[in-house]
Amino acid sequence: MSTTATWLDLPADSPYGVHNLPYGVFTAADRPGRRRIGVRIGDLVLDAGAAARAVGAPSALLDAESLNPLMASGRSTWRAVRAALTSWLTDEAHRDTVGPCLLPLADVRLHLPFEVADYVDFYASEHHATNLGKIFRPGQEPLTPNWKHLPIGYHGRAGTVVVSGTPVARPHGQRKAPAEAAPSFGPSLRLDIEAEVAFVVGTPSGLGHPVALDGFAEHVFGVCLLNDWSARDLQAWEYVPLGPFLGKSFATSVAPWVVPLEALEHARVEPPARDVEPLPYLDDRKAEPWGLDLAMEVSLNGHPVSRPPFAGMYWTAAQQLAHLTVNGANLRTGDLYGSGTVSGPEPKQRGSLIELSWNGTRPLELPDGTSRTFLEDGDEVSITATAPGPGGLRVGFGEVTGRITG
Amino acid sequence: MSTTATWLDLPADSPYGVHNLPYGVFTAADRPGRRRIGVRIGDLVLDAGAAARAVGAPSALLDAESLNPLMASGRSTWRAVRAALTSWLTDEAHRDTVGPCLLPLADVRLHLPFEVADYVDFYASEHHATNLGKIFRPGQEPLTPNWKHLPIGYHGRAGTVVVSGTPVARPHGQRKAPAEAAPSFGPSLRLDIEAEVAFVVGTPSGLGHPVALDGFAEHVFGVCLLNDWSARDLQAWEYVPLGPFLGKSFATSVAPWVVPLEALEHARVEPPARDVEPLPYLDDRKAEPWGLDLAMEVSLNGHPVSRPPFAGMYWTAAQQLAHLTVNGANLRTGDLYGSGTVSGPEPKQRGSLIELSWNGTRPLELPDGTSRTFLEDGDEVSITATAPGPGGLRVGFGEVTGRITG
Repeated sequence: MSTTATWLDLPADSPYGVHNLPYGVFTAADRPGRRRIGVRIGDLVLDAGAAARAVGAPSALLDAESLNPLMASGRSTWRAVRAALTSWLTDEAHRDTVGPCLLPLADVRLHLPFEVADYVDFYASEHHATNLGKIFRPGQEPLTPNWKHLPIGYHGRAGTVVVSGTPVARPHGQRKAPAEAAPSFGPSLRLDIEAEVAFVVGTPSGLGHPVALDGFAEHVFGVCLLNDWSARDLQAWEYVPLGPFLGKSFATSVAPWVVPLEALEHARVEPPARDVEPLPYLDDRKAEPWGLDLAMEVSLNGHPVSRPPFAGMYWTAAQQLAHLTVNGANLRTGDLYGSGTVSGPEPKQRGSLIELSWNGTRPLELPDGTSRTFLEDGDEVSITATAPGPGGLRVGFGEVTGRITG
Repeated sequence: MSTTATWLDLPADSPYGVHNLPYGVFTAADRPGRRRIGVRIGDLVLDAGAAARAVGAPSALLDAESLNPLMASGRSTWRAVRAALTSWLTDEAHRDTVGPCLLPLADVRLHLPFEVADYVDFYASEHHATNLGKIFRPGQEPLTPNWKHLPIGYHGRAGTVVVSGTPVARPHGQRKAPAEAAPSFGPSLRLDIEAEVAFVVGTPSGLGHPVALDGFAEHVFGVCLLNDWSARDLQAWEYVPLGPFLGKSFATSVAPWVVPLEALEHARVEPPARDVEPLPYLDDRKAEPWGLDLAMEVSLNGHPVSRPPFAGMYWTAAQQLAHLTVNGANLRTGDLYGSGTVSGPEPKQRGSLIELSWNGTRPLELPDGTSRTFLEDGDEVSITATAPGPGGLRVGFGEVTGRITG
């Protein structure tokens, strides 16, 4: 399988070659107040609006301060813009005009790449849901009766979605251990992560018009990494009967790069076999597969602590979108939905500390000689991922990182 | 107590006199494509931007297509704009300039008055929570252990908040009765309402900066009626463990009028005595009281079926805001939060059909000879309210109405 050559001097195996071209939003020193759309290529960022103007192409969608106008423009435009970007970065004739529009990644500041409309978080890893069931309801059936019939999800707080690198202040709130008579108030003592993959809606849909499984690629613009920071003690006390609220709403971090769905054709895999027959609107056995073979890595203070495999998720993003809209709820450009914590079957594949430390009973020993159950002030967590691309290349997702402040 | 006189020919007891002046957004036939800010006075709507221009006042905040810029401008500006509107409608000198900016309410189309940022729904009526506990968990303690320690809430779907009058399509989804072996898919068979009062945030707050009880009036711009349509069968099957999702996300209707908080000074009452000592951040015993004495009425196909009293809500909107932000979550202009279903202690004061029909076991007999457990196609539900104003006047909240389509 051949891949497209670029006139840039890139390592042949870069996960940010022209087969990827993730979108972000940046500012740079020459115009610090102006957010611009950037496309990552190697360790450079293409100022996409400037490049469009330089080659005399239509630039309005690329000259915006967020990805929303491009995201709203629909799949055929996404394809055309991606083809244009590919041409600019591969056709030697564009070298002199486009070259000056490249900036070193190290010289730019990356921002939240899109305006979040609604944020939904799912719960689609059977291993994660089973682990949490065993931890919280020992001796009982770990999965709730609905789990294999529908992709369980809930709405989170869109206004606290922040870009990678934003410090995360340890939240305060109410917590009550089972043995305590009354709740107390203070900083969370069980601050955790949830390593997730998130999907960003581009094309809106109408109220009352569900998006079927085969509409996924028409509506979803791209994919980014997400860390759903979670205060387990706040969550445990508050979540019955209406679900997580303050235990989740203080911060949700996303990576600065949105990988176009089109860059993930080689990452598509069959989802795992389901042991419960899905209702027709969720039945993807005859549909195009939307399992995605992302290899994720979670690092704590620079030490890899987990490698969650995304391919094994029980529910796919296409099923999640079909479920989310089956009641007639419409989609807006900027709707963001997370997969839920990605955990694999092995202990070193778990995407949260509550699983990795088994509810704090088995501290993680780090190579620096320290150990962790939950996060301490100053801790930094980074999540990265790659997926198969063409010709043996990998597609990189950048990273989502955040440091805990006290 | 004297009230301000207007040069308009209004009934002396109008709930929409100059003591109220709720804000909305309308279009009218002369400029059908242009949304304008309107202020209701009697059965007229003042084109607020046109009035500002006519009197030579600053008009930017009133010339917007939604209330968001005005809402974002902060409390001192809200006061100044309200004072200006009052002057234009009471000072005889403005009659000739402002008069032409009034349109009959019947001639305008009302729209969603603000862009919703995040939508949160609380659960603050002890009577409602107790009724639902008795219905769903007979023989057990009806309130969950956390209920009197914190205002339970969850995030809903902001993108499906619609203005009063928008038809509500019966949602489809999964439902499973306890006796059934597997879920089935189809239209909700237990479609319900929730009569609520909602609060609209104007002034934003910073991430990591909780809004204390005494910050309520700095941040909350106004109050509107809300109907949180609920598909009880979808909700019952999906909501464990992460809370309501598709059972609520298909539509949430709000009234077209936002009553300024400043118009509700006479409606403020002491909240009910709490039988559990609140944690300090929720302790309003030494704070200014934010109970609000709204008298609500729920009508089904024109027949009043319930009169929920808002004054008895266990948790106030100020406590809800303090709780919502205590973990550091920031507020954005347009954040909307509902009180939760308003139910009083008496059977005819219940704010949902699941309570009024006691889970469908006691059908409501309507004066038209029909009876209801849950909503049928074609049913129309309207919620109205008034609150005490100055000098024995009432403050009207308009109505939130919606008809079920099949």
